[in-house]
Amino acid sequence: MVKANGNYLKLPGSYLFSTIGKKVREYSAANPEAKIIRLGIGDVTQPIAPAIIEAMHKAVDEMGNAETFKGYAPDLGYEFLRNTIAENDYKARGCNIEADEIFVSDGAKCDCSNIQEIFSLDNKIAVCDPVYPVYVDSNVMAGRAGDYNAKTETWSDVIYMPCTADNGFAPQIPDKTPDLIYLCFPNNPTGATITKAQLQEWVDYANKVGAVILYDAAYEAYISEENVPHSIYECEGARTCAIEFRSFSKNAGFTGVRLGFTVIPKELKAGDVALHGLWARRHGTKYNGAPYIIQRAGEAVYSAAGKEQLKAQVAYYMNNAKYIYEGLKGAGFTVSGGVNAPYIWLKTPNNMTSWEFFDYLLEKVQVVGTPGAGFGPSGEGYFRLTAFGTYENTVAAVDRIKNAGL
Amino acid sequence: MVKANGNYLKLPGSYLFSTIGKKVREYSAANPEAKIIRLGIGDVTQPIAPAIIEAMHKAVDEMGNAETFKGYAPDLGYEFLRNTIAENDYKARGCNIEADEIFVSDGAKCDCSNIQEIFSLDNKIAVCDPVYPVYVDSNVMAGRAGDYNAKTETWSDVIYMPCTADNGFAPQIPDKTPDLIYLCFPNNPTGATITKAQLQEWVDYANKVGAVILYDAAYEAYISEENVPHSIYECEGARTCAIEFRSFSKNAGFTGVRLGFTVIPKELKAGDVALHGLWARRHGTKYNGAPYIIQRAGEAVYSAAGKEQLKAQVAYYMNNAKYIYEGLKGAGFTVSGGVNAPYIWLKTPNNMTSWEFFDYLLEKVQVVGTPGAGFGPSGEGYFRLTAFGTYENTVAAVDRIKNAGL
Repeated sequence: MVKANGNYLKLPGSYLFSTIGKKVREYSAANPEAKIIRLGIGDVTQPIAPAIIEAMHKAVDEMGNAETFKGYAPDLGYEFLRNTIAENDYKARGCNIEADEIFVSDGAKCDCSNIQEIFSLDNKIAVCDPVYPVYVDSNVMAGRAGDYNAKTETWSDVIYMPCTADNGFAPQIPDKTPDLIYLCFPNNPTGATITKAQLQEWVDYANKVGAVILYDAAYEAYISEENVPHSIYECEGARTCAIEFRSFSKNAGFTGVRLGFTVIPKELKAGDVALHGLWARRHGTKYNGAPYIIQRAGEAVYSAAGKEQLKAQVAYYMNNAKYIYEGLKGAGFTVSGGVNAPYIWLKTPNNMTSWEFFDYLLEKVQVVGTPGAGFGPSGEGYFRLTAFGTYENTVAAVDRIKNAGL
Repeated sequence: MVKANGNYLKLPGSYLFSTIGKKVREYSAANPEAKIIRLGIGDVTQPIAPAIIEAMHKAVDEMGNAETFKGYAPDLGYEFLRNTIAENDYKARGCNIEADEIFVSDGAKCDCSNIQEIFSLDNKIAVCDPVYPVYVDSNVMAGRAGDYNAKTETWSDVIYMPCTADNGFAPQIPDKTPDLIYLCFPNNPTGATITKAQLQEWVDYANKVGAVILYDAAYEAYISEENVPHSIYECEGARTCAIEFRSFSKNAGFTGVRLGFTVIPKELKAGDVALHGLWARRHGTKYNGAPYIIQRAGEAVYSAAGKEQLKAQVAYYMNNAKYIYEGLKGAGFTVSGGVNAPYIWLKTPNNMTSWEFFDYLLEKVQVVGTPGAGFGPSGEGYFRLTAFGTYENTVAAVDRIKNAGL
């Protein structure tokens, strides 16, 4: 008699952004005339840059021609892309990462959620709180999170590292020793970063206790301050304790194009098992590579024209971030983030819960954000706004929130 | 202290097609002048059809324009594609499948290997022997296969259903009762099919014992005979016991474009848990959708021009299949398949093992095929040749094999 995976049934409610989507669809259906501004899910609004469009047209034509047609891609991704990534994202920053340590994929979300699969089920995970829900949810589905406590909204086998105003939204080394440490900087949702010296402490700690850091650097392109590391491999010793995830979704607007990559250094081991080999085995057996056309799009991200055009795109979004930050701060809200990240982290006014604030903004002024509680217990009382809207919508949304009677 | 997933370490050797790739690369390196003909991995050689190329160019332009730019895709895939699939692949065949029971993905390999995740780890799987290695390997990685017996090359917790010349390469209902039954027709690697009446027996059996059939119909487009079902939903009662996987790789040459889908009827349950909801949760949490450009390519597969062009492409490959089948049969080889599938299943001559025959063909005549043993113990003594080469290479390969001195 077939049985379902009981771990899936432990998950309370649906995936955060699916829930938000549902609430917004229901509100629109009930209020068809309402002009909703979405600063909730971190989706981009600027079109794909011309240099990338050109590269995709060229690749599409190659696929239509017998001489240049491409079938199955190499397991780890095309060399032209892996070489470009190694050069630009790593060697150019003095990080010693080789092309054959890079695994091209269809996005960081898939990699972040699948990576736990190559580790033992009895490994303990530690996560920042609040944080991108995929880290915990994927471990719940695998059976690594223990049981859910509806009262505290925490999982019995997960080590939470609170990131609150008190510690400047930077996690502290936990009391219990984890085996897998999820770090995400610039952080989603708080927009906070840590310095290279602070990250070095994590690398030293992981090497000391034999833990692996799963480092999500999806928002690296938004770093504007000196002394904030773009890659964990800028730290001494990271090659023996860290896996890094990168995405093209936010630096190049690929949320609908789908491309990302994962870096696993050859020296990185669990006991005497090289993790590079395990991830390669997963790629070979359970994945078939990102489309050739999309891998060519990724290559164009690093072309001279592509870099120029994307610099402008990032600047456009960061100008939105500045507008939200200053506008709401000026209106008396408590805000953080927005300097090295496209996210503004807002304290909910009048002691509203974050879902109460979500409903209030949706119903009163038709602005959609993301409730902090959706990112973990320490997110309660906070709210995330993204800078990925158009400038016009961003300005309108800030004005609406100012006039929401809060 | 971090630990690796011990189940991964149980896997003997690397993924079949990675091993073949490595052997071929090594031979080429040692014999740079050798003109190797690859009829091994089931990769296609014909370029993407013009109607699909046109659709991709259009979609690329949409992505470059602010008014038509697309970000994150809907969790289950775009409605324009899911509606077209429901119409053409199901309703047109009298199968009652709705668009919201279709989950668009980046390929059947990912879906076939990930689907086991929504089931309990103590569920027993049954597989045809020989069969596409991904079914067993993905269950080994999850810890559902038990232990490997190197002597018999079988897993202790897997129920094998031999498909040999004695039973016309059609599986029999197993003695032990499985919870999950993997069926693939037209079959990879044997190219065999079963009739609608035979498939109905499996559906009735699954409903009787409460098992779920995981039906891989990736090669459906190659069916030429009447009375061979294109979808399991042509059978009475399949909606309560079957999940179907489809691919665009073989009917439209998308091996490097990447698109597929999975069908989960709303009534399908494990106990009282609807599997549709579990797979939707997996999609929402661990996947971010196929690229918009690629989903538009998939839509074009069903356009009038697309259908016309792909009919010709399938005919081209099936003409190769006929040439291999008749050529080798005429030369005294024992062959099957090739009528409803792009695969020819060849008995190795002179009692060679399938890997011995692989090495012999590679070294003597530089033709690459796939050793039957790579698909399971009952594949030993057999060899798979694909019809996906060019006509010229196919003719040359058959001539070379004829003259290989066997």
